[in-house]
Amino acid sequence: KKLSDYAIVKGHKQKFLGVPKTIDNDLALTDHTPGFGSAARYVASTVREITIDANVYEKKSVTIIEIMGRHAGWLTAASALARKYTGDNPLLIYLPETAFDQEEFLKAVEKSFEKNCNVIVCVSEGIHDDKGTFICEYDNSVGTDTFGKYLENLVRNRLGVKARSVELNVSQRCSASMMSATDQQEAIKAGEFGVQAALNGETGKMISFIRKETSDGTYIMECGLEDVNAICNEEKTVPSEWITEDGSDVTEAFINYARPLIQGTVQIPCGEDGLPSFVYRK
Amino acid sequence: KKLSDYAIVKGHKQKFLGVPKTIDNDLALTDHTPGFGSAARYVASTVREITIDANVYEKKSVTIIEIMGRHAGWLTAASALARKYTGDNPLLIYLPETAFDQEEFLKAVEKSFEKNCNVIVCVSEGIHDDKGTFICEYDNSVGTDTFGKYLENLVRNRLGVKARSVELNVSQRCSASMMSATDQQEAIKAGEFGVQAALNGETGKMISFIRKETSDGTYIMECGLEDVNAICNEEKTVPSEWITEDGSDVTEAFINYARPLIQGTVQIPCGEDGLPSFVYRK
Repeated sequence: KKLSDYAIVKGHKQKFLGVPKTIDNDLALTDHTPGFGSAARYVASTVREITIDANVYEKKSVTIIEIMGRHAGWLTAASALARKYTGDNPLLIYLPETAFDQEEFLKAVEKSFEKNCNVIVCVSEGIHDDKGTFICEYDNSVGTDTFGKYLENLVRNRLGVKARSVELNVSQRCSASMMSATDQQEAIKAGEFGVQAALNGETGKMISFIRKETSDGTYIMECGLEDVNAICNEEKTVPSEWITEDGSDVTEAFINYARPLIQGTVQIPCGEDGLPSFVYRK
Repeated sequence: KKLSDYAIVKGHKQKFLGVPKTIDNDLALTDHTPGFGSAARYVASTVREITIDANVYEKKSVTIIEIMGRHAGWLTAASALARKYTGDNPLLIYLPETAFDQEEFLKAVEKSFEKNCNVIVCVSEGIHDDKGTFICEYDNSVGTDTFGKYLENLVRNRLGVKARSVELNVSQRCSASMMSATDQQEAIKAGEFGVQAALNGETGKMISFIRKETSDGTYIMECGLEDVNAICNEEKTVPSEWITEDGSDVTEAFINYARPLIQGTVQIPCGEDGLPSFVYRK
């Protein structure tokens, strides 16, 4: 916006358009952001694999999966896409959009054992109590970056069951293994639309995604333009009507929103070394 | 072996053959084990992605990647396959087969900054000092499962640089995203060979892999049979001649051994939900 304003004021011809990308999906005035679909697919697929891994044990166990998203729970919510049937894992999902109560959490885990002896819990790194204190700050001995360990110890000590925690970590943002073809195509489209908008004389805008649906419910996405000023200082969180009342799950409306974004597999070209060939900076 | 002996003694006709699978690759009398190639490919590919993620920063940083393998360093060694050129990351690799000296480690990190300001270090969860004490037992405050955090703090406090640690965790053993086609074909071949051996009257044996090479160096694998008694109580570790003298890397001989095992991509079928369709136990 500043560069765009400067060019206008100084009489330069350059145009400035923002083509967004963020796995966090936390930008306002756009249906979703390029990058989110692939990261959501990575999260859902990995949570499904960890669920299958846990299912081989017949003894009660709790697996805490830590997912990125300090203030917005979009990626954590995407773990719900891993379910194959009603009542499948992950049985509990906690986003930073609601207050986390650890006594309620322990009760919810106990209740989940009625459905499956292996309970998978997906938690955003940003969960906090009703006073706004991050759960990761409850116990400094385990370090603020390993609050999964705190919840793991809580479950083990209070419920007396096997517990482990898994941090999905940087692979959520850098793995290409689960790239969504829909996300890839939309990212290319957003770039093209941005260049075309500049050529058309637009400036100081961001490319947005607008969701259209045909009468049979088919997902269609179109690009639009929004003023960057209206976007840059806001953080879009998961709407409260997409979170269940007890704050331990997301609703079907979220699933319907996210499912089209993770469709399609991309064939990553591999080199003679047997690994994906990425563009590489020495 | 016990079931096989019992059947022979009691005059039963049942045959008992072992078809192995372990990502750890620590079985004796076989070139490698089904499962290792796919896990090695997952490790190499993920380490490459984390390297690219780290390369966007121009400030000195150290990333510690914790890899499975308590006594045998095969999977940690596989991180060397991530390199695209001589001097590429991971710049340091530590296996449990050698003693770990943290002062030498800090010197090696300092020296690595001459090659790249972002240093990736791959460490086996089983690294220990020359007295046999696991590094993860050095600092109980961070918990025995998070020794990566211990090394991360050590680097930050002693070298004054940005440091983070990433635990690859259970995905190493349960992710299908980087399945090696070679590994998949060999696993099927091992199963077939086991059934055929039983039909031929063999019992009390394990299917082994025997590496053959054509005159032009092409990798060929054949199945063999070994007595299970000679295998079950031994743990095959990475041979010392495949580890560099200072214990901070593997040699070209290891690369030549492992490279053929990670070749080929498997297309995992996806369902309408956009995710891999695994066989699933409710």
